[in-house]
Amino acid sequence: MKADIHYKESTFTVKGYGAKDENNTTLKEMDVERPMIKEDEVIIETLYSGVCHSDIHQVHNDWENTRYPCVPGHEVIGKIVNAGSKVTKFKEGDIVGVGCMIDSCQACPQCKNDQEQFCTGPHGPTMTYNGYFADPESDFNTYGGYASHLVSNQDFLIKIPDTLDIKAAAPILCAGVTTYSPLKHWGVKKGDQVAVVGIGGLGHMGVQLAKAMGAKVTAITTEKSKTDDVKALGADHVLLSTDDKAMEEHAMKFDFILITIPSAFDVNPYISLIAPRGSLVTVGLLGAYESPTNNMEVAKYARSIGGSIIGGIKETQDVMNFCAKHGILPEVEMIGIEQINDAFQKVKEEDVRFRYVIDMKS
Amino acid sequence: MKADIHYKESTFTVKGYGAKDENNTTLKEMDVERPMIKEDEVIIETLYSGVCHSDIHQVHNDWENTRYPCVPGHEVIGKIVNAGSKVTKFKEGDIVGVGCMIDSCQACPQCKNDQEQFCTGPHGPTMTYNGYFADPESDFNTYGGYASHLVSNQDFLIKIPDTLDIKAAAPILCAGVTTYSPLKHWGVKKGDQVAVVGIGGLGHMGVQLAKAMGAKVTAITTEKSKTDDVKALGADHVLLSTDDKAMEEHAMKFDFILITIPSAFDVNPYISLIAPRGSLVTVGLLGAYESPTNNMEVAKYARSIGGSIIGGIKETQDVMNFCAKHGILPEVEMIGIEQINDAFQKVKEEDVRFRYVIDMKS
Repeated sequence: MKADIHYKESTFTVKGYGAKDENNTTLKEMDVERPMIKEDEVIIETLYSGVCHSDIHQVHNDWENTRYPCVPGHEVIGKIVNAGSKVTKFKEGDIVGVGCMIDSCQACPQCKNDQEQFCTGPHGPTMTYNGYFADPESDFNTYGGYASHLVSNQDFLIKIPDTLDIKAAAPILCAGVTTYSPLKHWGVKKGDQVAVVGIGGLGHMGVQLAKAMGAKVTAITTEKSKTDDVKALGADHVLLSTDDKAMEEHAMKFDFILITIPSAFDVNPYISLIAPRGSLVTVGLLGAYESPTNNMEVAKYARSIGGSIIGGIKETQDVMNFCAKHGILPEVEMIGIEQINDAFQKVKEEDVRFRYVIDMKS
Repeated sequence: MKADIHYKESTFTVKGYGAKDENNTTLKEMDVERPMIKEDEVIIETLYSGVCHSDIHQVHNDWENTRYPCVPGHEVIGKIVNAGSKVTKFKEGDIVGVGCMIDSCQACPQCKNDQEQFCTGPHGPTMTYNGYFADPESDFNTYGGYASHLVSNQDFLIKIPDTLDIKAAAPILCAGVTTYSPLKHWGVKKGDQVAVVGIGGLGHMGVQLAKAMGAKVTAITTEKSKTDDVKALGADHVLLSTDDKAMEEHAMKFDFILITIPSAFDVNPYISLIAPRGSLVTVGLLGAYESPTNNMEVAKYARSIGGSIIGGIKETQDVMNFCAKHGILPEVEMIGIEQINDAFQKVKEEDVRFRYVIDMKS
């Protein structure tokens, strides 16, 4: 995609790949207009943009909150091409990362506590796409990384350590922090028994991160064919969720279970696998479970069933640094932007190992 | 009830009040036979026996695990009348408490860690009634405190501090520890915002315990008529769950929510009340919730939905001591054993403030 950018009086126009409305969800090239950047914002030329399952949910309005036109993409590595006059932390030419948020009120207790994802300001956090600008006067939708350029507040930029391959690093900005954050907050530590359920874009990061934290990692999947790949990522053991006997044998085994299944499922069979006082956290599903939770199984062993989304900006930087330190990288398949609709289909069919990244210069 | 006890060769017989089978759930006087105590066990003459909602569930086989005949009662204050030859921690004549368990394997990692309620021995913990004896050779059911006498291993006896009124202390042995344990394990501390939902036998203990831990306590109830009583227990605030507007105004307020509702309900409206990274724990319901949990609400603020039952023996002693130290006592209505069926009906109709205790000498 050509890095076209056209400045107008108080806006600028770039090329994006987006869905026009709910009845036109095939992504097509379109011009997108954005308000001119403020003094503390930057324009970033997109180099690499990860393809997250939530992009597909958002394009199809699965969460009934999509604002069209919708240009997805919240795992972005790019180069700053225009920095506002008060930008001090970065400069034009810097390679930076942008994750799921580009701004927030930065004044509420949650923002002050590095938890911008919980911002209680008037608009909540400004999501990278499908979001409201922090400026309440603005009617503009935000547009993500499936575009030649992207805007962010300087405080929401992530530094990319030199040792990380920027072609593959993009998924750390969502898949990485989404799995790292619950592992940290639910206190996974060396020697813990950890299970990761669903070995796709999120799960394959969860396996690597939990392993690097010193846990004994079991990957739980429906696909026997993934066994070798998953062990190569560092899993000590692979458990097939379709094997009832094996599931029974793992009852009460895991101190922590991370579930990355992206659509409604029955959580009850996984609850039985949690050790006394252990926890299970679901990160993929943003909606209701398939069946009511049986509190008999939860209460009997004082278990916890949690959920989590992304993390704050400091935590996103932390996971980027953690990946650099431990040599962790997402396993990616590079595609061109014109292959995006095909890629969406393959993600839905779980026919990707493990994350697509769009090379925007392709 | 007369404290009759008749010793036979290898068993002894006492008077109990129990349900004969699933079709005869009205409690009636019956003779119950128990195996003769072992060297490390004691026979306790029951003085006071609390009436727990779970007694009603168990008598009616609501959990589909009732062993008939069923003599309930697991909140017992009594006097040791016969101590086995190796009983060293207590002596005949001592006043002691017995909660939900009377034995366990005492060898598994959970027992060694003072978590006998999670015992992974061959039979799990030996529950005070409706339980299997730890001795795998024994065919006997265990019978609870709605009887003239009761058996327990000496390690499962609770010391009753002198300053506690033994007439009212019995409910601490289940309602007390069931609410104390989650407050401790989920880390409630001074200044936390805590809500207690359902202000009955469990909830009225939860309010008092949370308050004594230094929390700001909101009682959530459907019954406006309980407001004064609940404030007298120490609640800072009362919220009616039927008041949609008030519920909305309390969104994201509570660091910890303890739910004591004893039957299936929809947990989703309460999830919205939890603060970011806060927790909700359900202790009353031992079965499925009414509706599937919406993980969007859970994940958005990294919340946890837990469950809990009772606590270990050490923790039961802890809550007994904590109540003595802080002047906390269950609010009880004393009844005679012959009023038990009427009392069951009133508990079901929530027409008790807040716990019935049977005076076994009545």
